[in-house]
Amino acid sequence: MTHSHAASMLADFFVQVRERTRQLAAPLSDEDCCAQSMPDASPVKWHLAHTSWFFETFVLERFEARFTPFDPAYRVLFNSYYNGIGTRHPRHQRGLLTRPALSAILRYRQNIDQRIATLLGDSRCHNECLDLVILGLHHEQQHQELILTDIKHLLSLNPLKPGYRRHETEHMEGGEPIESEWVCFAGGMQRLGYAGAGFCFDNERPQHTVYLQPYELASRLVTNGEYLAFVQDGGYVNPAWWLADGWDWLQTHAITHPLYWSPVAEGWHEFTLAGMMTLLAAAPVAHLSYYEADAYARWKGERLPTEFEWEHAALISAGAPSEELPMNDPGCLHPAVATGTGLTQMTDTLWQWTQSSYAPYPGYRPDPGAVGEYNGKFMVNQYVLRGGSCSTPKHHVRPSYRNFFPATARWQFSGIRLARDKTPW
Amino acid sequence: MTHSHAASMLADFFVQVRERTRQLAAPLSDEDCCAQSMPDASPVKWHLAHTSWFFETFVLERFEARFTPFDPAYRVLFNSYYNGIGTRHPRHQRGLLTRPALSAILRYRQNIDQRIATLLGDSRCHNECLDLVILGLHHEQQHQELILTDIKHLLSLNPLKPGYRRHETEHMEGGEPIESEWVCFAGGMQRLGYAGAGFCFDNERPQHTVYLQPYELASRLVTNGEYLAFVQDGGYVNPAWWLADGWDWLQTHAITHPLYWSPVAEGWHEFTLAGMMTLLAAAPVAHLSYYEADAYARWKGERLPTEFEWEHAALISAGAPSEELPMNDPGCLHPAVATGTGLTQMTDTLWQWTQSSYAPYPGYRPDPGAVGEYNGKFMVNQYVLRGGSCSTPKHHVRPSYRNFFPATARWQFSGIRLARDKTPW
Amino acid sequence: MTHSHAASMLADFFVQVRERTRQLAAPLSDEDCCAQSMPDASPVKWHLAHTSWFFETFVLERFEARFTPFDPAYRVLFNSYYNGIGTRHPRHQRGLLTRPALSAILRYRQNIDQRIATLLGDSRCHNECLDLVILGLHHEQQHQELILTDIKHLLSLNPLKPGYRRHETEHMEGGEPIESEWVCFAGGMQRLGYAGAGFCFDNERPQHTVYLQPYELASRLVTNGEYLAFVQDGGYVNPAWWLADGWDWLQTHAITHPLYWSPVAEGWHEFTLAGMMTLLAAAPVAHLSYYEADAYARWKGERLPTEFEWEHAALISAGAPSEELPMNDPGCLHPAVATGTGLTQMTDTLWQWTQSSYAPYPGYRPDPGAVGEYNGKFMVNQYVLRGGSCSTPKHHVRPSYRNFFPATARWQFSGIRLARDKTPW
Amino acid sequence: MTHSHAASMLADFFVQVRERTRQLAAPLSDEDCCAQSMPDASPVKWHLAHTSWFFETFVLERFEARFTPFDPAYRVLFNSYYNGIGTRHPRHQRGLLTRPALSAILRYRQNIDQRIATLLGDSRCHNECLDLVILGLHHEQQHQELILTDIKHLLSLNPLKPGYRRHETEHMEGGEPIESEWVCFAGGMQRLGYAGAGFCFDNERPQHTVYLQPYELASRLVTNGEYLAFVQDGGYVNPAWWLADGWDWLQTHAITHPLYWSPVAEGWHEFTLAGMMTLLAAAPVAHLSYYEADAYARWKGERLPTEFEWEHAALISAGAPSEELPMNDPGCLHPAVATGTGLTQMTDTLWQWTQSSYAPYPGYRPDPGAVGEYNGKFMVNQYVLRGGSCSTPKHHVRPSYRNFFPATARWQFSGIRLARDKTPW
Repeated sequence: MTHSHAASMLADFFVQVRERTRQLAAPLSDEDCCAQSMPDASPVKWHLAHTSWFFETFVLERFEARFTPFDPAYRVLFNSYYNGIGTRHPRHQRGLLTRPALSAILRYRQNIDQRIATLLGDSRCHNECLDLVILGLHHEQQHQELILTDIKHLLSLNPLKPGYRRHETEHMEGGEPIESEWVCFAGGMQRLGYAGAGFCFDNERPQHTVYLQPYELASRLVTNGEYLAFVQDGGYVNPAWWLADGWDWLQTHAITHPLYWSPVAEGWHEFTLAGMMTLLAAAPVAHLSYYEADAYARWKGERLPTEFEWEHAALISAGAPSEELPMNDPGCLHPAVATGTGLTQMTDTLWQWTQSSYAPYPGYRPDPGAVGEYNGKFMVNQYVLRGGSCSTPKHHVRPSYRNFFPATARWQFSGIRLARDKTPW
Repeated sequence: MTHSHAASMLADFFVQVRERTRQLAAPLSDEDCCAQSMPDASPVKWHLAHTSWFFETFVLERFEARFTPFDPAYRVLFNSYYNGIGTRHPRHQRGLLTRPALSAILRYRQNIDQRIATLLGDSRCHNECLDLVILGLHHEQQHQELILTDIKHLLSLNPLKPGYRRHETEHMEGGEPIESEWVCFAGGMQRLGYAGAGFCFDNERPQHTVYLQPYELASRLVTNGEYLAFVQDGGYVNPAWWLADGWDWLQTHAITHPLYWSPVAEGWHEFTLAGMMTLLAAAPVAHLSYYEADAYARWKGERLPTEFEWEHAALISAGAPSEELPMNDPGCLHPAVATGTGLTQMTDTLWQWTQSSYAPYPGYRPDPGAVGEYNGKFMVNQYVLRGGSCSTPKHHVRPSYRNFFPATARWQFSGIRLARDKTPW
Repeated sequence: MTHSHAASMLADFFVQVRERTRQLAAPLSDEDCCAQSMPDASPVKWHLAHTSWFFETFVLERFEARFTPFDPAYRVLFNSYYNGIGTRHPRHQRGLLTRPALSAILRYRQNIDQRIATLLGDSRCHNECLDLVILGLHHEQQHQELILTDIKHLLSLNPLKPGYRRHETEHMEGGEPIESEWVCFAGGMQRLGYAGAGFCFDNERPQHTVYLQPYELASRLVTNGEYLAFVQDGGYVNPAWWLADGWDWLQTHAITHPLYWSPVAEGWHEFTLAGMMTLLAAAPVAHLSYYEADAYARWKGERLPTEFEWEHAALISAGAPSEELPMNDPGCLHPAVATGTGLTQMTDTLWQWTQSSYAPYPGYRPDPGAVGEYNGKFMVNQYVLRGGSCSTPKHHVRPSYRNFFPATARWQFSGIRLARDKTPW
Repeated sequence: MTHSHAASMLADFFVQVRERTRQLAAPLSDEDCCAQSMPDASPVKWHLAHTSWFFETFVLERFEARFTPFDPAYRVLFNSYYNGIGTRHPRHQRGLLTRPALSAILRYRQNIDQRIATLLGDSRCHNECLDLVILGLHHEQQHQELILTDIKHLLSLNPLKPGYRRHETEHMEGGEPIESEWVCFAGGMQRLGYAGAGFCFDNERPQHTVYLQPYELASRLVTNGEYLAFVQDGGYVNPAWWLADGWDWLQTHAITHPLYWSPVAEGWHEFTLAGMMTLLAAAPVAHLSYYEADAYARWKGERLPTEFEWEHAALISAGAPSEELPMNDPGCLHPAVATGTGLTQMTDTLWQWTQSSYAPYPGYRPDPGAVGEYNGKFMVNQYVLRGGSCSTPKHHVRPSYRNFFPATARWQFSGIRLARDKTPW
């Protein structure tokens, strides 16, 4: 593929990704886009701006011929964590940025879009520049999922329980899920980590050898109905099932059920992006912390997989691919009932907590410069989630993809796939 | 005055007050109106809604013929503190109410306005009803000042330092202030508290006798220039001047100057409702906590007045009234340089901290019902401020008017009038 | 009285007071004397040392001929709040001072005792020196009560519920209390504050005129039985009775009854200095916060007295003095059932919360130098308690005596005397 | 070995271990033994009691013929974390247990000692019982080290900076350390985890296969002098070297140097168990958090080892064993300057932070019953330290031994051994 062809394909991808972000914000008011529900979440407006800031700071500033910033103040306002870039607006005060207005941010996006398009059309745009644009787009796709998780959290705290998008409801049903079965893997010496020629994040490299004991994975995710049995068995009041830290966390926050569940007279409701719904027993249980996922697994006498087991299983036995949606169709933003055979629900339903703490691979080197702060700075006190969710952009994930959050995080689309050691016989 | 004449005058007053609240929000975007900068402050949208809620709950619900709520959810959402009314939305989460939208709240206001107008035009609207409308209007005027103090705080935290209203700047200058002089008062047995026939809040009653020792009050408020001398003398690093609690508060929050001051190379800037300005030495120092006001007074070898001294002085020697502005002209929203003779800057410049803790008057009885939670519930750990400020609606205050805030509050338009015991000779 | 006679009487008083402090610590182990149960309380060893530090720093350092400190480190270790003296050991870490050992502190006390005795025997010891010794002794008597309240709090947190002194139990009974009656006072212009020739703290001065409306005081304190009726009527779950701050405090700390009460199958137990006892309905309810005292009074339709009403009442109608005990007999360290006629239980049972916030009297001037930090620094966000308790040293209090604590303080011997406005007829 | 011979040898070991614990407390006063400096640390008295509680609860209660508890209250008071045993005294209030007295706890120890001795002499004492006694002794050895780290922390907060044991000072010197060299390891498939016939904790099992890339370890620990260069290079003010969480931790706690260092006019002092000493540049830097260890490694361009690298290296190339001390001679309680060749300072100097988060080995199963809460409950948000320290009992550690603490822990004897990937050539 010639350089100009690559640049041209990238230009198309750029337009698609950027347009989808804008569409995700479309159902929301200016007020919805400005509020921040907690320090871990960001306002939608901030996501819209920060993803543009990324291109301006890491691409345009370096490669544009006569770079001038769109607005010098944005350099500080929309920096997320990059110490190499300088000071930042305090994370917990992002919701106070009523100015610049949403309309100004949308103009900012347009401006960046035009300048990146021009840059990509310039024959002097070389590989380093293209690579940073590609990084920026994958970065933006990550923020697309965060837009959905963050707005879900915000709306859930509103006593009116407003939905993000009404037409979700038509998807939110389904019959019984498939039976959960154990799928066996022999383990042994395996090469893990990204080895392809396409894009991956730095934390997926280098490819390296890992030795795995034989193991088994459940063929689908744990359902609401199965998790409810844990709740009803006193799961949240019996310390036997919980890590010590998890038990303290339960007590401190008086937690008695998953994040978006709420008890009603006749059973349970669940807050969704379509508003408040009856809890569907057949659908996968979602929005769990690591502590809850781990406690459930202990109660069942099983365990969570390691991230290496998950990746190995995904490499050799990915189930039938889910129906291909056009990249910019968000599909149903709620986890669907399991269907199919073999390992199902691997990447299109819920992120799956692993028991692996987030750590560098042997030989890991972050990228040079401020971009290198992307991943490595967070390799402590976080746990890896593998897969992808109903809210993850299509084609965004890979078997080697590593998501990570602290053990207390619940507002992500996170669920449980059980694992166990394979009993030799 | 006939009943219908009173009702008709009240209807005019109602229209004026309600319209002014709407005008105060006019320079702000939907986003500005939704954000909450701290638990002590409320979003402008919340103020717009809560003041309407007050009329709906305390007037319409009781006196309207076929009352139906505008929206039943608003009863909880926009209740501020009235336990007698039921549950409330948590105060620190008011900024998360992106729904109902600002536009919905403006429709709510219109609806309430029409229904109150109808009620006031109804000959069956008796005195109890009129009294509650009057209370609601004075309540709304209090929130008009809070709209200004709360939006000032929000905008001050925005790194862009945006102004609320640009045309303030033309007022923000002036020559030297008048010389500060001591005005003497003989004290003795005095009747204090409201004794007129008009409106007052329950905490201004009953009128009662107080014995005052002879005392003196400064003829004007302390200026920025005078306060700066305290700062430059190490006022914020010497515990000698501070109450023990105040000193702890300074250390915990690393406070080194008044709230809206910021040091720049060539001196000091001050954040105002017109944005960031050069600190004007001649203007009164504003936005101080009780601790700062008290520390300054000790450093000068003087003290703060009691609320009784202040009221007595206001009753017998109010200075020349400030130029009368039409009620709905907000005037300059920044404290002006002192002019005139006698006691100046009593009610139109800054609230003045007194050394009196907020307590009931002898014989005080709160109003019956939930309205009685208006004042009495807060009579602990608060200090009384007397007077009024540049942001207080015209004609809103009286010599007997009692404002009150915790000793740490700085975001109000609060300043210092010095007092001292009169030396007998 | 000649100077030498005064000095000689003072020397006797000095020996008595110092000896009593030592006796109060006698039933306690080295470990008991070292622990600190919360930042508001201090270890007994710290009290033993700090009261000696007071004499060393304010008396010996100024008046001893060839002063050398007992141990220079003690100047920092045992300074409580005197910024004028220099740095201090952090208050909340007093319990970590396992060194110096209790035995070293007892030697310190002996050393100070000898040197003060020598100083008092010296004819050159003039009035200023004598006055500071007297101040030090009254200061030490205050700490004697704190030794008892602080050790009571510490022992209450021990699951073994150990008593401080077993022989209390013989006193802890009694029949029915006297009937509670209203005692009327006409009020009017009154002179309050200390006017005698003896010792008083600076906050009791100057004497000044106050105007009082007619009022009534209850003839005895509220009993456990009466307070239990409030608890059983849902007093702790109904916000109607509580100040807003008090209600928040209840929720935050999940408070449902007085500090040392604990529910048992057959009713209530109360922790006392003699260990855990059955709650005696006839005895006065003790260890209440201001919020609880105020809420009870509202529930009864009455109010707390002002400190001025209390002092005036104490001046003109003190009941029959309680049986005179030798100064160093601590008597029963638990509040006794009311007996007698007129105003009873004024100074020997429990401190009585007043509705008066702690503030300077008109014309108040703190003493010069670091001693002046004794009282004035604390005149914010505290409420005055009047009277005295079963744990207050005999002869320590006066009608003008002002004790003060924050509204949340419960570990002091604090109770309720009701007041009401006198209905004119 | 016959059963009775094993029991007899165990009885000797029991006496030695128990006696050493008592000796460690011997230099301390009753007060020293009672205080708790922070929630992470426990009073020495509590360690003395809890280690006895372990034998009483897990051995005597199950195996003693006519078991009666020494004191039923101790079951709650001295339970550390075992939910299976019932309720516990709150961890942060252990310092308030002035009762039972130290003398009572010493009697408790004696009582348990006698009963265990009797049990071990009984021919019916079978293997399960012996195994629990052995577990209890290794548990007690862990608490022996905690006694030293906890008392060091307590004494360090005392402004008098008292030493635990004066005679340390004679050991605290030394010439230059050996040069730091890289020791190479080829990696490959390795069997790790405990495979011997002796005692190990459950978290060291099962033995399992791990694949290691080639790597190198530094031959000795990082010294104070080397670490000081990091400090002086602005290591604590440059976010480039720190994990994001670590940087937040630095800011929140205003940390600018290792825990026990303090700057003085002429350089640095270090608090030791012998009191305050001049910082010895040649000695290993100690009492670092994981964040500090990791930041130093990044600054050097190296990394921390994984726990698997460390164990593998320890297995194949342990340096010359340190001079054999009798088990109950604590030796020098301060890390010594490096001497020797090959990998030195592996187990007798400082625990070494690894980059491995604490997680179960493949196939890990905790022991059944409450004893199973010993290790597995803590496998989240902790990092593994390998080796042993100058304060670890002799013969207590193994190559497979896994110590673990949160990334913020600094009061342990923790240091840095650098690692790096082996560059292929």
